[in-house]
Amino acid sequence: MTAPAAGAPKKRGRPVRKDTGGPGARERILTAARAEFAERGYDKASIRAIARGADVDPALVHHYYGPKEKIFAAAVETDFAPALEAADILRKGEHDTLGERLTRFTLGIWENPATREPLLAIVRSAVANDTAATVFRELVTAQLVARIADELELPDPRLRAELAAAHLVGVAMLRHVIKVEPLASADLERVVGIVAPAVQRHLAGADPSPTRPFP
Amino acid sequence: MTAPAAGAPKKRGRPVRKDTGGPGARERILTAARAEFAERGYDKASIRAIARGADVDPALVHHYYGPKEKIFAAAVETDFAPALEAADILRKGEHDTLGERLTRFTLGIWENPATREPLLAIVRSAVANDTAATVFRELVTAQLVARIADELELPDPRLRAELAAAHLVGVAMLRHVIKVEPLASADLERVVGIVAPAVQRHLAGADPSPTRPFP
Repeated sequence: MTAPAAGAPKKRGRPVRKDTGGPGARERILTAARAEFAERGYDKASIRAIARGADVDPALVHHYYGPKEKIFAAAVETDFAPALEAADILRKGEHDTLGERLTRFTLGIWENPATREPLLAIVRSAVANDTAATVFRELVTAQLVARIADELELPDPRLRAELAAAHLVGVAMLRHVIKVEPLASADLERVVGIVAPAVQRHLAGADPSPTRPFP
Repeated sequence: MTAPAAGAPKKRGRPVRKDTGGPGARERILTAARAEFAERGYDKASIRAIARGADVDPALVHHYYGPKEKIFAAAVETDFAPALEAADILRKGEHDTLGERLTRFTLGIWENPATREPLLAIVRSAVANDTAATVFRELVTAQLVARIADELELPDPRLRAELAAAHLVGVAMLRHVIKVEPLASADLERVVGIVAPAVQRHLAGADPSPTRPFP
Protein backbone atom coordinates (compact mmCIF):
# COMPACT_ATOMS: atom_id res chain seq x y z
CA MET A 1 0.00 0.00 0.00
CA THR A 2 2.97 2.41 -0.29
CA ALA A 3 3.53 4.68 -3.29
CA PRO A 4 3.84 2.81 -6.63
CA ALA A 5 7.30 4.34 -7.11
CA ALA A 6 8.71 2.17 -4.30
CA GLY A 7 7.68 -1.01 -6.12
CA ALA A 8 8.95 0.10 -9.52
CA PRO A 9 12.49 -1.35 -9.46
CA LYS A 10 11.11 -4.61 -8.16
CA LYS A 11 8.44 -4.60 -10.85
CA ARG A 12 10.94 -3.76 -13.57
CA GLY A 13 13.46 -6.36 -12.48
CA ARG A 14 11.24 -9.37 -11.98
CA PRO A 15 9.10 -9.51 -15.09
CA VAL A 16 12.19 -9.39 -17.33
CA ARG A 17 13.59 -12.39 -15.48
CA LYS A 18 10.27 -14.21 -15.43
CA ASP A 19 9.06 -13.42 -18.92
CA THR A 20 12.13 -13.62 -21.12
CA GLY A 21 14.99 -14.77 -18.88
CA GLY A 22 17.09 -11.85 -20.06
CA PRO A 23 19.13 -11.54 -23.26
CA GLY A 24 20.20 -14.84 -24.81
CA ALA A 25 17.95 -16.94 -22.57
CA ARG A 26 16.53 -18.89 -25.50
CA GLU A 27 19.99 -19.96 -26.60
CA ARG A 28 21.15 -20.63 -23.05
CA ILE A 29 18.18 -22.97 -22.62
CA LEU A 30 19.06 -24.86 -25.80
CA THR A 31 22.70 -25.18 -24.72
CA ALA A 32 21.67 -26.39 -21.27
CA ALA A 33 19.20 -28.84 -22.81
CA ARG A 34 21.84 -30.36 -25.10
CA ALA A 35 24.17 -30.82 -22.13
CA GLU A 36 21.43 -32.32 -19.95
CA PHE A 37 20.21 -34.79 -22.63
CA ALA A 38 23.80 -35.75 -23.49
CA GLU A 39 24.70 -36.43 -19.88
CA ARG A 40 21.57 -38.07 -18.56
CA GLY A 41 19.73 -39.37 -21.64
CA TYR A 42 16.13 -38.58 -22.57
CA ASP A 43 14.54 -40.61 -19.77
CA LYS A 44 16.39 -39.05 -16.87
CA ALA A 45 16.79 -35.49 -18.20
CA SER A 46 14.61 -32.96 -16.36
CA ILE A 47 13.20 -29.57 -17.38
CA ARG A 48 14.14 -28.35 -13.90
CA ALA A 49 17.83 -29.19 -14.45
CA ILE A 50 17.76 -27.56 -17.90
CA ALA A 51 16.28 -24.40 -16.34
CA ARG A 52 18.94 -24.46 -13.63
CA GLY A 53 21.69 -24.86 -16.25
CA ALA A 54 20.33 -21.89 -18.22
CA ASP A 55 19.68 -19.83 -15.08
CA VAL A 56 15.99 -19.30 -15.91
CA ASP A 57 12.62 -20.23 -14.44
CA PRO A 58 11.42 -23.74 -15.51
CA ALA A 59 8.25 -22.14 -16.88
CA LEU A 60 10.38 -20.24 -19.38
CA VAL A 61 11.78 -23.50 -20.79
CA HIS A 62 8.22 -24.57 -21.51
CA HIS A 63 7.32 -21.12 -22.84
CA TYR A 64 10.10 -21.17 -25.45
CA TYR A 65 10.24 -24.86 -26.34
CA GLY A 66 7.07 -26.60 -25.07
CA PRO A 67 7.09 -30.06 -23.43
CA LYS A 68 10.11 -32.31 -23.00
CA GLU A 69 9.89 -34.01 -26.41
CA LYS A 70 9.85 -30.62 -28.16
CA ILE A 71 12.95 -29.34 -26.43
CA PHE A 72 14.58 -32.71 -27.11
CA ALA A 73 13.70 -32.25 -30.79
CA ALA A 74 15.34 -28.82 -30.79
CA ALA A 75 18.46 -30.20 -29.08
CA VAL A 76 18.68 -33.14 -31.51
CA GLU A 77 18.22 -30.89 -34.54
CA THR A 78 21.19 -28.79 -33.41
CA ASP A 79 23.39 -31.77 -32.55
CA PHE A 80 22.47 -33.60 -35.75
CA ALA A 81 23.09 -30.58 -38.00
CA PRO A 82 26.59 -31.70 -39.16
CA ALA A 83 25.17 -35.04 -40.39
CA LEU A 84 22.44 -33.26 -42.38
CA GLU A 85 25.10 -31.94 -44.75
CA ALA A 86 25.36 -35.45 -46.20
CA ALA A 87 22.77 -34.62 -48.86
CA ASP A 88 24.84 -31.65 -50.06
CA ILE A 89 27.92 -33.88 -50.24
CA LEU A 90 26.04 -36.17 -52.62
CA ARG A 91 25.12 -33.29 -54.89
CA LYS A 92 28.73 -32.20 -55.41
CA GLY A 93 30.59 -34.84 -57.44
CA GLU A 94 30.41 -37.71 -59.90
CA HIS A 95 27.65 -40.31 -59.82
CA ASP A 96 30.10 -43.18 -59.49
CA THR A 97 31.64 -41.75 -56.31
CA LEU A 98 28.32 -41.30 -54.43
CA GLY A 99 29.07 -44.22 -52.12
CA GLU A 100 32.63 -43.17 -51.44
CA ARG A 101 31.67 -39.56 -50.64
CA LEU A 102 28.77 -40.51 -48.36
CA THR A 103 30.86 -43.15 -46.57
CA ARG A 104 33.89 -40.93 -46.02
CA PHE A 105 31.77 -37.98 -44.90
CA THR A 106 29.57 -39.96 -42.48
CA LEU A 107 32.34 -42.04 -40.93
CA GLY A 108 34.39 -38.82 -40.68
CA ILE A 109 31.72 -37.27 -38.45
CA TRP A 110 32.00 -40.29 -36.15
CA GLU A 111 35.81 -40.06 -36.20
CA ASN A 112 35.84 -36.62 -34.58
CA PRO A 113 34.95 -36.62 -30.85
CA ALA A 114 33.43 -33.12 -31.10
CA THR A 115 30.79 -34.34 -33.58
CA ARG A 116 30.69 -37.96 -32.35
CA GLU A 117 29.72 -37.37 -28.73
CA PRO A 118 26.48 -35.46 -29.43
CA LEU A 119 25.46 -38.11 -32.02
CA LEU A 120 26.23 -40.87 -29.56
CA ALA A 121 24.04 -39.17 -26.96
CA ILE A 122 21.14 -39.02 -29.45
CA VAL A 123 21.55 -42.69 -30.37
CA ARG A 124 21.64 -43.67 -26.67
CA SER A 125 18.43 -41.77 -25.98
CA ALA A 126 16.71 -43.14 -29.08
CA VAL A 127 17.67 -46.76 -28.33
CA ALA A 128 16.48 -46.48 -24.72
CA ASN A 129 13.26 -44.49 -25.13
CA ASP A 130 10.39 -44.70 -27.62
CA THR A 131 9.55 -40.99 -27.49
CA ALA A 132 13.16 -40.08 -28.21
CA ALA A 133 13.19 -42.67 -31.03
CA THR A 134 10.12 -41.02 -32.57
CA VAL A 135 11.68 -37.55 -32.44
CA PHE A 136 14.90 -38.84 -33.99
CA ARG A 137 13.04 -40.83 -36.64
CA GLU A 138 11.04 -37.81 -37.76
CA LEU A 139 14.16 -35.69 -38.08
CA VAL A 140 16.10 -38.37 -39.97
CA THR A 141 13.21 -39.11 -42.31
CA ALA A 142 12.23 -35.53 -43.13
CA GLN A 143 15.63 -33.92 -43.27
CA LEU A 144 18.12 -36.59 -44.25
CA VAL A 145 16.53 -39.60 -45.97
CA ALA A 146 14.18 -37.49 -48.11
CA ARG A 147 17.04 -35.29 -49.31
CA ILE A 148 19.39 -38.20 -50.06
CA ALA A 149 16.55 -40.02 -51.87
CA ASP A 150 16.09 -36.98 -54.11
CA GLU A 151 19.59 -37.59 -55.48
CA LEU A 152 18.96 -41.22 -56.46
CA GLU A 153 17.79 -42.55 -59.80
CA LEU A 154 16.62 -46.04 -58.88
CA PRO A 155 13.34 -47.61 -57.77
CA ASP A 156 12.65 -47.31 -54.02
CA PRO A 157 15.04 -44.39 -53.47
CA ARG A 158 14.00 -43.92 -49.81
CA LEU A 159 14.47 -47.58 -48.98
CA ARG A 160 17.89 -47.47 -50.67
CA ALA A 161 18.88 -44.28 -48.84
CA GLU A 162 17.92 -45.94 -45.55
CA LEU A 163 19.84 -49.13 -46.31
CA ALA A 164 22.95 -47.07 -47.15
CA ALA A 165 22.47 -45.16 -43.88
CA ALA A 166 21.91 -48.46 -42.04
CA HIS A 167 25.32 -49.71 -43.13
CA LEU A 168 27.03 -46.54 -41.91
CA VAL A 169 25.10 -46.53 -38.62
CA GLY A 170 26.13 -50.16 -38.07
CA VAL A 171 29.81 -49.41 -38.75
CA ALA A 172 29.69 -46.47 -36.31
CA MET A 173 28.03 -48.65 -33.64
CA LEU A 174 30.55 -51.48 -33.90
CA ARG A 175 33.57 -49.16 -34.26
CA HIS A 176 32.72 -46.46 -31.70
CA VAL A 177 30.12 -47.89 -29.29
CA ILE A 178 30.71 -51.64 -28.96
CA LYS A 179 34.33 -51.17 -30.13
CA VAL A 180 34.97 -54.62 -31.64
CA GLU A 181 38.52 -55.23 -32.84
CA PRO A 182 39.99 -55.07 -35.44
CA LEU A 183 37.26 -52.68 -36.67
CA ALA A 184 37.64 -50.22 -33.78
CA SER A 185 41.33 -49.61 -34.58
CA ALA A 186 41.30 -50.18 -38.34
CA ASP A 187 42.61 -47.41 -40.57
CA LEU A 188 39.66 -45.28 -41.72
CA GLU A 189 40.68 -45.50 -45.39
CA ARG A 190 40.73 -49.30 -45.18
CA VAL A 191 37.19 -49.25 -43.80
CA VAL A 192 36.05 -46.75 -46.46
CA GLY A 193 37.66 -48.95 -49.11
CA ILE A 194 35.49 -51.93 -48.15
CA VAL A 195 32.27 -50.13 -47.19
CA ALA A 196 32.05 -47.55 -50.00
CA PRO A 197 31.35 -50.06 -52.83
CA ALA A 198 28.50 -51.55 -50.77
CA VAL A 199 27.03 -48.08 -50.16
CA GLN A 200 27.53 -47.22 -53.85
CA ARG A 201 25.57 -50.31 -54.82
CA HIS A 202 22.67 -49.23 -52.59
CA LEU A 203 22.67 -45.66 -53.92
CA ALA A 204 23.46 -46.21 -57.58
CA GLY A 205 22.97 -49.83 -58.54
CA ALA A 206 25.34 -52.67 -59.33
CA ASP A 207 29.04 -52.12 -58.79
CA PRO A 208 30.19 -50.04 -61.77
CA SER A 209 33.74 -51.44 -61.85
CA PRO A 210 33.67 -55.06 -60.67
CA THR A 211 36.96 -55.82 -62.39
CA ARG A 212 38.86 -53.11 -60.50
CA PRO A 213 41.39 -54.68 -58.10
CA PHE A 214 39.57 -55.63 -54.94
CA PRO A 215 40.39 -53.27 -52.04
CA MET B 1 19.85 -78.12 24.95
CA THR B 2 17.12 -80.59 23.97
CA ALA B 3 17.83 -83.82 22.16
CA PRO B 4 19.61 -83.40 18.78
CA ALA B 5 16.72 -85.20 17.11
CA ALA B 6 14.48 -82.16 17.60
CA GLY B 7 16.84 -79.94 15.60
CA ALA B 8 17.37 -82.38 12.79
CA PRO B 9 14.56 -81.34 10.41
CA LYS B 10 15.53 -77.69 10.82
CA LYS B 11 19.18 -78.48 10.20
CA ARG B 12 18.37 -80.61 7.19
CA GLY B 13 16.00 -78.05 5.70
CA ARG B 14 17.94 -74.80 5.97
CA PRO B 15 21.39 -75.60 4.59
CA VAL B 16 19.84 -76.98 1.41
CA ARG B 17 18.00 -73.68 0.93
CA LYS B 18 21.04 -71.57 1.87
CA ASP B 19 23.77 -73.50 0.13
CA THR B 20 22.24 -74.58 -3.18
CA GLY B 21 18.81 -72.93 -3.38
CA GLY B 22 17.22 -76.30 -3.97
CA PRO B 23 16.94 -78.22 -7.24
CA GLY B 24 17.12 -76.06 -10.36
CA ALA B 25 18.28 -72.94 -8.48
CA ARG B 26 21.12 -72.30 -10.91
CA GLU B 27 18.75 -72.25 -13.86
CA ARG B 28 16.12 -70.25 -11.98
CA ILE B 29 18.79 -67.62 -11.26
CA LEU B 30 19.77 -67.43 -14.94
CA THR B 31 16.11 -67.12 -16.00
CA ALA B 32 15.50 -64.39 -13.41
CA ALA B 33 18.69 -62.58 -14.49
CA ARG B 34 17.64 -62.57 -18.16
CA ALA B 35 14.26 -61.12 -17.21
CA GLU B 36 15.80 -58.50 -14.91
CA PHE B 37 18.42 -57.34 -17.45
CA ALA B 38 15.82 -57.29 -20.24
CA GLU B 39 13.39 -55.22 -18.21
CA ARG B 40 15.69 -52.79 -16.44
CA GLY B 41 18.91 -52.75 -18.49
CA TYR B 42 22.40 -53.45 -17.13
CA ASP B 43 22.69 -50.22 -15.16
CA LYS B 44 19.52 -50.55 -13.12
CA ALA B 45 19.41 -54.36 -12.78
CA SER B 46 20.09 -55.55 -9.23
CA ILE B 47 21.40 -58.83 -7.83
CA ARG B 48 18.79 -58.49 -5.09
CA ALA B 49 15.94 -58.44 -7.64
CA ILE B 50 17.46 -61.40 -9.50
CA ALA B 51 17.65 -63.35 -6.22
CA ARG B 52 14.03 -62.44 -5.45
CA GLY B 53 12.93 -63.56 -8.92
CA ALA B 54 14.70 -66.88 -8.49
CA ASP B 55 13.53 -67.29 -4.86
CA VAL B 56 17.07 -67.68 -3.51
CA ASP B 57 19.43 -65.80 -1.22
CA PRO B 58 21.38 -63.00 -2.99
CA ALA B 59 24.61 -64.64 -1.83
CA LEU B 60 23.73 -67.69 -3.90
CA VAL B 61 23.57 -65.58 -7.07
CA HIS B 62 27.13 -64.52 -6.40
CA HIS B 63 28.15 -68.05 -5.47
CA TYR B 64 26.97 -69.48 -8.79
CA TYR B 65 27.72 -66.61 -11.17
CA GLY B 66 30.07 -64.12 -9.47
CA PRO B 67 29.68 -60.32 -9.73
CA LYS B 68 27.08 -58.50 -11.85
CA GLU B 69 29.12 -58.45 -15.08
CA LYS B 70 29.58 -62.24 -14.89
CA ILE B 71 25.91 -62.98 -14.51
CA PHE B 72 25.21 -60.49 -17.29
CA ALA B 73 27.68 -62.41 -19.47
CA ALA B 74 25.85 -65.66 -18.72
CA ALA B 75 22.49 -64.05 -19.52
CA VAL B 76 23.80 -62.53 -22.76
CA GLU B 77 25.36 -65.81 -23.85
CA THR B 78 21.99 -67.54 -23.47
CA ASP B 79 20.01 -64.77 -25.19
CA PHE B 80 22.55 -64.46 -27.99
CA ALA B 81 22.72 -68.22 -28.65
CA PRO B 82 20.36 -68.16 -31.69
CA ALA B 83 22.58 -65.56 -33.43
CA LEU B 84 25.68 -67.69 -32.85
CA GLU B 85 24.33 -70.24 -35.32
CA ALA B 86 25.21 -67.80 -38.11
CA ALA B 87 28.64 -69.40 -38.53
CA ASP B 88 27.04 -72.81 -39.10
CA ILE B 89 24.70 -71.28 -41.69
CA LEU B 90 27.77 -70.09 -43.63
CA ARG B 91 29.30 -73.54 -43.63
CA LYS B 92 26.27 -75.16 -45.26
CA GLY B 93 25.94 -73.94 -48.85
CA GLU B 94 27.61 -72.47 -51.92
CA HIS B 95 30.29 -69.78 -51.70
CA ASP B 96 28.35 -67.36 -53.86
CA THR B 97 25.32 -67.43 -51.55
CA LEU B 98 27.25 -66.60 -48.36
CA GLY B 99 25.85 -63.06 -48.26
CA GLU B 100 22.30 -64.13 -48.94
CA ARG B 101 22.34 -66.87 -46.31
CA LEU B 102 23.87 -64.67 -43.61
CA THR B 103 21.52 -61.79 -44.40
CA ARG B 104 18.34 -63.87 -44.44
CA PHE B 105 19.33 -65.74 -41.28
CA THR B 106 20.32 -62.64 -39.27
CA LEU B 107 17.42 -60.44 -40.33
CA GLY B 108 15.12 -63.43 -39.70
CA ILE B 109 16.21 -63.51 -36.05
CA TRP B 110 15.23 -59.83 -35.76
CA GLU B 111 11.90 -60.50 -37.51
CA ASN B 112 10.71 -62.85 -34.78
CA PRO B 113 9.68 -61.10 -31.52
CA ALA B 114 10.71 -64.13 -29.45
CA THR B 115 14.34 -63.84 -30.60
CA ARG B 116 14.27 -60.07 -31.23
CA GLU B 117 13.33 -58.88 -27.75
CA PRO B 118 16.27 -60.49 -25.89
CA LEU B 119 18.70 -59.16 -28.55
CA LEU B 120 17.20 -55.71 -28.26
CA ALA B 121 17.65 -55.80 -24.50
CA ILE B 122 21.35 -56.70 -24.95
CA VAL B 123 21.87 -53.88 -27.47
CA ARG B 124 20.15 -51.38 -25.13
CA SER B 125 22.39 -52.39 -22.24
CA ALA B 126 25.54 -52.33 -24.39
CA VAL B 127 24.77 -48.90 -25.85
CA ALA B 128 24.06 -47.40 -22.43
CA ASN B 129 26.82 -48.97 -20.34
CA ASP B 130 30.53 -49.57 -20.96
CA THR B 131 30.76 -52.69 -18.82
CA ALA B 132 27.84 -54.24 -20.68
CA ALA B 133 29.48 -53.20 -23.99
CA THR B 134 32.69 -54.98 -22.97
CA VAL B 135 30.85 -58.19 -22.07
CA PHE B 136 28.92 -58.11 -25.36
CA ARG B 137 32.06 -57.28 -27.39
CA GLU B 138 33.96 -60.24 -25.93
CA LEU B 139 31.14 -62.64 -26.72
CA VAL B 140 30.67 -61.32 -30.27
CA THR B 141 34.40 -61.36 -31.00
CA ALA B 142 35.21 -64.78 -29.57
CA GLN B 143 32.11 -66.69 -30.59
CA LEU B 144 30.74 -65.03 -33.71
CA VAL B 145 33.31 -62.94 -35.59
CA ALA B 146 36.11 -65.49 -35.16
CA ARG B 147 33.92 -68.30 -36.44
CA ILE B 148 32.60 -66.34 -39.42
CA ALA B 149 36.14 -65.21 -40.28
CA ASP B 150 37.24 -68.85 -40.39
CA GLU B 151 34.91 -69.34 -43.36
CA LEU B 152 36.35 -66.45 -45.44
CA GLU B 153 39.12 -66.62 -48.01
CA LEU B 154 40.13 -62.95 -48.29
CA PRO B 155 42.65 -60.67 -46.56
CA ASP B 156 41.44 -59.20 -43.25
CA PRO B 157 38.75 -61.85 -42.68
CA ARG B 158 37.87 -60.53 -39.21
CA LEU B 159 37.49 -56.95 -40.42
CA ARG B 160 35.29 -58.20 -43.26
CA ALA B 161 33.17 -60.36 -40.94
CA GLU B 162 32.66 -57.31 -38.72
CA LEU B 163 31.71 -55.03 -41.62
CA ALA B 164 29.18 -57.61 -42.82
CA ALA B 165 27.80 -57.80 -39.27
CA ALA B 166 27.81 -53.99 -39.05
CA HIS B 167 25.50 -53.77 -42.05
CA LEU B 168 23.06 -56.25 -40.55
CA VAL B 169 23.17 -54.56 -37.12
CA GLY B 170 22.44 -51.22 -38.79
CA VAL B 171 19.48 -52.63 -40.73
CA ALA B 172 18.07 -54.14 -37.53
CA MET B 173 18.51 -50.84 -35.66
CA LEU B 174 16.76 -48.73 -38.31
CA ARG B 175 14.03 -51.31 -38.99
CA HIS B 176 13.22 -52.47 -35.46
CA VAL B 177 14.52 -49.82 -33.03
CA ILE B 178 14.30 -46.41 -34.71
CA LYS B 179 11.65 -47.78 -37.11
CA VAL B 180 12.20 -45.47 -40.09
CA GLU B 181 9.77 -45.88 -42.96
CA PRO B 182 9.71 -47.36 -45.56
CA LEU B 183 12.40 -49.69 -44.15
CA ALA B 184 10.38 -50.63 -41.04
CA SER B 185 7.47 -51.97 -43.13
CA ALA B 186 9.36 -53.12 -46.23
CA ASP B 187 8.95 -56.74 -47.32
CA LEU B 188 11.79 -58.78 -45.84
CA GLU B 189 12.67 -60.35 -49.20
CA ARG B 190 13.00 -56.90 -50.77
CA VAL B 191 15.42 -55.90 -48.00
CA VAL B 192 17.37 -59.16 -48.37
CA GLY B 193 17.50 -58.56 -52.13
CA ILE B 194 19.29 -55.24 -51.69
CA VAL B 195 21.42 -56.03 -48.62
CA ALA B 196 22.64 -59.54 -49.53
CA PRO B 197 24.91 -58.46 -52.45
CA ALA B 198 26.60 -55.90 -50.17
CA VAL B 199 27.16 -58.54 -47.49
CA GLN B 200 28.36 -60.99 -50.15
CA ARG B 201 30.92 -58.42 -51.33
CA HIS B 202 32.24 -58.07 -47.77
CA LEU B 203 32.45 -61.82 -47.22
CA ALA B 204 33.58 -63.06 -50.61
CA GLY B 205 34.91 -60.18 -52.71
CA ALA B 206 33.52 -58.29 -55.68
CA ASP B 207 29.97 -59.01 -56.78
CA PRO B 208 30.14 -62.33 -58.68
CA SER B 209 27.28 -61.52 -61.04
CA PRO B 210 27.21 -57.77 -61.71
CA THR B 211 25.25 -58.29 -64.93
CA ARG B 212 22.39 -60.04 -63.16
CA PRO B 213 19.20 -57.91 -63.21
CA PHE B 214 19.43 -55.45 -60.38
CA PRO B 215 17.07 -56.34 -57.52
